[in-house]
Amino acid sequence: MIKKLNEQIKKKNAPIVVGLDPMMNYIPSQITKKAFEEYGETLEGAAEAIFQFNKGIVDATYDLIPAVKPQIAMYEQFGIPGLMAYKRTVDYCHDKGLVVIGDIKRGDIGSTSGAYATGHIGTIQVGSKTYTPFDEDIVTVNPYLGSDGVQPFIDVCNANDRGIFVLVKTSNPSSGEFQDQKVDGKPLYEIVGEQVAKWGENSMDGDYSNVGAVVGATYPEMGEALRKIMPHAVILVPGYGAQGGKGKDLVHFFNKDGLGAIVNSSRGIIAAYKKEEYASFGEANYADASRKAVEDMIADIASALA
Amino acid sequence: MIKKLNEQIKKKNAPIVVGLDPMMNYIPSQITKKAFEEYGETLEGAAEAIFQFNKGIVDATYDLIPAVKPQIAMYEQFGIPGLMAYKRTVDYCHDKGLVVIGDIKRGDIGSTSGAYATGHIGTIQVGSKTYTPFDEDIVTVNPYLGSDGVQPFIDVCNANDRGIFVLVKTSNPSSGEFQDQKVDGKPLYEIVGEQVAKWGENSMDGDYSNVGAVVGATYPEMGEALRKIMPHAVILVPGYGAQGGKGKDLVHFFNKDGLGAIVNSSRGIIAAYKKEEYASFGEANYADASRKAVEDMIADIASALA
Repeated sequence: MIKKLNEQIKKKNAPIVVGLDPMMNYIPSQITKKAFEEYGETLEGAAEAIFQFNKGIVDATYDLIPAVKPQIAMYEQFGIPGLMAYKRTVDYCHDKGLVVIGDIKRGDIGSTSGAYATGHIGTIQVGSKTYTPFDEDIVTVNPYLGSDGVQPFIDVCNANDRGIFVLVKTSNPSSGEFQDQKVDGKPLYEIVGEQVAKWGENSMDGDYSNVGAVVGATYPEMGEALRKIMPHAVILVPGYGAQGGKGKDLVHFFNKDGLGAIVNSSRGIIAAYKKEEYASFGEANYADASRKAVEDMIADIASALA
Repeated sequence: MIKKLNEQIKKKNAPIVVGLDPMMNYIPSQITKKAFEEYGETLEGAAEAIFQFNKGIVDATYDLIPAVKPQIAMYEQFGIPGLMAYKRTVDYCHDKGLVVIGDIKRGDIGSTSGAYATGHIGTIQVGSKTYTPFDEDIVTVNPYLGSDGVQPFIDVCNANDRGIFVLVKTSNPSSGEFQDQKVDGKPLYEIVGEQVAKWGENSMDGDYSNVGAVVGATYPEMGEALRKIMPHAVILVPGYGAQGGKGKDLVHFFNKDGLGAIVNSSRGIIAAYKKEEYASFGEANYADASRKAVEDMIADIASALA
C-alpha cells in the first residue's frame, strides 16, 4: 500500500494529504439547510451535511492530491449516523482514486487490536461470507500498549497489503508530557521510533515499509532525529498550517529521494474560505477556496524542498 | 457517576464488572443460526447474534453485578451493524440498571478528544436539538498524547456527571515496553499515575474522583504502588481470570474502605460454558454458566479481601 501511496505522491507531485475533519461550523449554511430540510435537525441530518461538505471538497481537489485523512472522531461524535457518513466518505474517496488514511488512533491488547485491524483494514468472516467493514487503506495506531498491541495491525497489513502510521511524536502542545520523558538520556519518542523501525522490517513495500509513523510538523528538530531512526518509514506529518507548522519546518522529515513524508492539513484546507486569505471565494464557493489552499500548500512545500 | 458506581458495588457486594467482548466463536450455535436465518450471513446477522448473546448474559447476571464493560473493538470489527449492536447493548444494560463502561481507549489532540468525549459521554447539538449519541456512563482513555488530549474528556465528565478510566499500566505481556521505561529511576506508568491523580482533583464525586485509572491484575506489585499514588482514583482492573490474574493478586488494588477497585472479567464469564469447570451447563445454558462464573468470581474476590 505504501508503494501505491508513494506512486500517487510522485504522480501528483504533492506529498500532502487533506484532513477531512469536518466541524458543523465549517459547513456552509446552504449545505446544512438542505440536509436539515431532508432529514430534520437529527444526527442523520448532521451526517448528511458532513458527507455533502466532504464531497464538495473531494470533487474540487482529488486531481491534485494523493490521499485524504478523515478523522473518525469528527464522525463518531454523531453516533451511528456519523459513522455512516465516515464510511460513505471512505468509499467516495476510493471511487475518486484516493488513498484513504483513517485517522482512528486505535490500539489495545492483542486480540482486541486484532479486532480493530480487522474492522478497518482487514476482512471479517461471517459464516461462509467475507466482508471488509470500514475498508480504509491505512490507519493510525496508538503504541502505548507495546508490541503485542501493534503486531495484530501489522499482521493484517501484511495479509491485505494495507498500512499503518504509528503515533511517535504528536503535534499537540502537551505531547511532550510523556513522549519527551528521558529514559537513560533518550526521549521516549525515540524509543518508540526505534520500535517502529523494527516493527516495519518485515513489511517492506518498495523502498518503504507499510509501517509508518506520525510525527508533528510542530516539532521539526525531533522530526529530523526520527527521520534517521526510521529510514524506511513514511512519516505522516500533522500540524501544518492551522497548528503552526510551515513548509520550511518540513524539510528534514523527507529523505533525499524526495519521499518519506506526507504532510497533512485539515482546517487550513477544508475551512479555507473562513480565512482572510481566501475569504473572497465566499461561503458558496468553499470548495474552490479549498482547491486554492491545496495549490498554495503544494507550492509552499515544493519551494521549501527545492 | 463514580459515586453511583460505588453505591452499586456496595449494594451488590461485588466489586466486579463483566466484560461484554463477544467473539463469534463464543456464541452458541442456536443463537447464530437464528440470527443468520433472519438476516443472512451478513454483518447485520453477526450483529444480531452478538446482541442476543449479550442479552442472555445480561438477563442472567444483572442482579449480581454493578456494571458491564463492552469492548467496542469487538463490535467495530463488524462495521456499522456491529456498532449498532454496541449501542443496543449499552441501552439494554442501562434498562437493566447497570453502569456501562465503554472500553473505547480513545485519545487524540484537544478538539478531537473533545469530539470523542462528546460522542460517547456527552451531548451534541444539531441545530436546535440535543442528542446523546453513544451514551456510555464511563469510558476508557489513552493518555499517550498528554494533558491536552485528556482534559476534553474531563471537561465533558464534569459537565455531564460521567467518568473516565485512564490507561496507566495495561494487563498485556508487552505493556512494559514503554510503560515501564524508567525516567530518573521512576517508571513511566507512575508518572502517568501521578497525572491521573492531578487530573482527577477537580472531579471528585463522593470519596472518589470521576477520573479513574486502568491497571492490570497481572501486575499486582505495580497495582500496590499505584494505589498509593492515586488515592482517590477507582482502579479498573482487567486481566483477572483468562489473562492470569487471581483474587489474591487483587488485594492491594483496594483501599481500606473496601472500595477503590473494580475487577473485570470478560472471557472467563461470557464464555464460561466453554471451560471444563462449567462445561456441564452445556451450550444451550451458556447464560446460566455465566451466572455461576460471576458468583464464583465474587466469592473468590470476597475471600481474598476478607
